[in-house]
Amino acid sequence: MKTIGYAANSSESPLTPLTFERRALRANDIALEILYCGVCHSDLHVARNDWGGSIYPVVPGHEIVGRVIEVGSAVTKFKPGENVAVGCMVDSCQDCDECHNDHEQYCRNGFTLTYGSPDRITGDITQGGYSKHLVVREEFVLRIPENLDLALAAPLLCAGITTYSPLREWNVGPGSRVGVVGMGGLGHMAIKLAVGLGAHVTVISTSPSKEQDAKDLGAHAFLVSKNEDSMAAAGSSFDLIIDTVPVNHDLNPYIPLLDNDATLVLVGQIGPVEGPNTAPMIFGRRRIAGSLIGGIAETQEMLDFCGRMNILPECEMIKMDEINEAFERMEKSDVRYRFVIDMASLSA
Amino acid sequence: MKTIGYAANSSESPLTPLTFERRALRANDIALEILYCGVCHSDLHVARNDWGGSIYPVVPGHEIVGRVIEVGSAVTKFKPGENVAVGCMVDSCQDCDECHNDHEQYCRNGFTLTYGSPDRITGDITQGGYSKHLVVREEFVLRIPENLDLALAAPLLCAGITTYSPLREWNVGPGSRVGVVGMGGLGHMAIKLAVGLGAHVTVISTSPSKEQDAKDLGAHAFLVSKNEDSMAAAGSSFDLIIDTVPVNHDLNPYIPLLDNDATLVLVGQIGPVEGPNTAPMIFGRRRIAGSLIGGIAETQEMLDFCGRMNILPECEMIKMDEINEAFERMEKSDVRYRFVIDMASLSA
Repeated sequence: MKTIGYAANSSESPLTPLTFERRALRANDIALEILYCGVCHSDLHVARNDWGGSIYPVVPGHEIVGRVIEVGSAVTKFKPGENVAVGCMVDSCQDCDECHNDHEQYCRNGFTLTYGSPDRITGDITQGGYSKHLVVREEFVLRIPENLDLALAAPLLCAGITTYSPLREWNVGPGSRVGVVGMGGLGHMAIKLAVGLGAHVTVISTSPSKEQDAKDLGAHAFLVSKNEDSMAAAGSSFDLIIDTVPVNHDLNPYIPLLDNDATLVLVGQIGPVEGPNTAPMIFGRRRIAGSLIGGIAETQEMLDFCGRMNILPECEMIKMDEINEAFERMEKSDVRYRFVIDMASLSA
Repeated sequence: MKTIGYAANSSESPLTPLTFERRALRANDIALEILYCGVCHSDLHVARNDWGGSIYPVVPGHEIVGRVIEVGSAVTKFKPGENVAVGCMVDSCQDCDECHNDHEQYCRNGFTLTYGSPDRITGDITQGGYSKHLVVREEFVLRIPENLDLALAAPLLCAGITTYSPLREWNVGPGSRVGVVGMGGLGHMAIKLAVGLGAHVTVISTSPSKEQDAKDLGAHAFLVSKNEDSMAAAGSSFDLIIDTVPVNHDLNPYIPLLDNDATLVLVGQIGPVEGPNTAPMIFGRRRIAGSLIGGIAETQEMLDFCGRMNILPECEMIKMDEINEAFERMEKSDVRYRFVIDMASLSA
C-alpha cells in the first residue's frame, strides 16, 4: 500500500513529505487510516539522532488514532470502520515471560518500536504515525472508547500510558498522596490520571508561576521546589512521586519528600541523573525506580478508564506542514500540553 | 550503677578506660552484664566524628550480648540469669505508625541510638556496649537462642539484622537469585543469611582473589565485576542485590545485573553514590532502595532463624585493650569478618 508521510532525511534536515510503501497485509494485520497523531518529545530526539542509531529516512509518530480500513484473513478482534489506536510498540516476541505477563514493553527479546525498528519478519525498518496509513498486527491495536474525542485521544497512547502504568504499579488509589515533577506532556497527564484514580495530587515545580495551570489541570496542591521551608514542611508526605523531567537533573530535593517505603519513579530522563545521596533512602527505606510506557492490556485498561472518567489531554491541533515549527516550540516548552497533528491536513 | 568502659574523648584520641554511671533502673528497665560486644564500622565513624555530631566522651558499641543481672519492678519478659542481646536501638516513641508496625528503626520521632543519643526521659547521652554493664528498657532487649555460641552472636545485632531485613522485605526465599556486593562484616552475613533462606547467592567483587573466601562462606557463585564479559553475561539475572560497600562508589555496574522489577538495596554507604544512569532502570522497571537495620520483632525473628539454622558470623575475638589496634585493622579491611570484644578482658 502506497502512503505518504513526513520524514526526516538526516539529523539536520527538517521533516518533509515522503511517499513510501506500507507492507501488504499479513493474516493477522490490520490497516488503518491515520486520523490524528500526537507529537512526542521522542519524535524530535529520533529525528535529530539525539540518542544515536536513527535510521533515515524516519517517519516519527507513536501516538496514533485512526480508523480500520482493511483486515487480514485471520483478524478476529477488529473490522473496517472501527476507531482504533496504536502506541509505541507494534510487535514483540509474544513468547517470553514478560510477554506472557502482558509486559510487552519489557519483552526479553526487545519489542518492535512503532518507528525505527526492524520488522521481526522482513527486517524492514518500521515507520511511524506522521503519515496517512499504518499496517500493524492486531495484537498491538487498541480500541478507543466511543465517548472519547478522537482528536484529543492520541497523546494517551504514550504520555497517558507512561504515567498511568506507574500509578497502577504502585497502587495509587483514593487517598494516595501523589507528587508530579515536571508539567509537560507527561506531567499534565500524570496529574489528570492520578486525580482520576482518587489521589491527592501535588505538582512540585521550580516555578511559582505555574500554580494556576496546575490547579486548572486538577492538582490539589502546589509545592515550589526552590522554597526550602515549603520543601522541609513537605518531608515524608508522598506515597509516590512521578518525575517526568526529560533532562538530567538532581533527584536529591525529591527523595526526602517521600514517605517511608515510598517511591520516586522516573519516566522522563533516559540517561544520567544527579544524586542520590543515600541517607534519606536508608533512613526511610525510600526507593527510586524507572518505568517504561505500559503493556498492551494495561494500555487498553487506561483507555477504558479515560473513557469512563472522560479524561483527555490538553492538545493544540496542528497541520502536518506545521510540524517543524511545532518541534521548535516543543524544544522551548512552548506548548500546552501536547501538539496533535490533524492528518486530514496531509494530502495523499 | 557505676561501670567501666572504653571511650573516645575527642575525634583524635584513642579509646581509653572511662568509669561512668548507668542509670538507676526504671520500672521497665533491665540491667545486664555485657559479655561480648561486636566492633562495627559505625563505632569508628562516631569515635572519630566522621559524620559530625559526636558528643564526647563516647563509649561505642551496639552489638551487645550479655546476661540479665537485675530487672525493674514492671519487667515481665526477662529475669536475672537469662542471656540477652541489645542492638543499635535502645528506645523509640512507641506511639507512631512505624513503631506500631514494628518498624522502630523508622520511628517518626527518631529512635534512640544505643550510644550518642539523648535519653528520651532525662536527656542524658546514651553510652554503648564497650563496657561492663548496660541498662535498657525491656522492649529493646532480645532473647538469644540457647544453642547459639554467645561469643559469636554479637555481630548479629547489627551486621545480621541489617542484611536480614532487606532479604525479608524483598521476599527472598528458595530459588531467589541474590547478589552480594562487598564482603566485609555486613556482606559476609548477607551471604550466610541468604543461603540460609534458600537463595542462590552470588558474590559480586572487584577482586578475583576473594572467590575461595566467598565459597567458604557458602556463596554458590562468584562474579568479578571488572570482567566485562562476565558482567554482560550476568545481565538481568538477580532478583535482589544487597550492596554493603560502605564508601562512595558507582552503582551503574550493578543495575543491569538486576532482572526486570528487581531491586538494588543499599545498606552500606550513607552519603553520595555515583550514578545512576536511568536507562536500565526505565527499560526494566528496575529499582534502587535503602534499608536501615530492622525492627525489634524482626531482629528477634532473625536471632531465632539463626538459632534454628545455626548461622553465626565469622569473628576474631579481641581483648578490650586491643580496640585501638582493631580500629586500625578494620580501616584496612584487615578482619575476617568481625572483631568481637571479650568483655571479661575488661576489669571493673
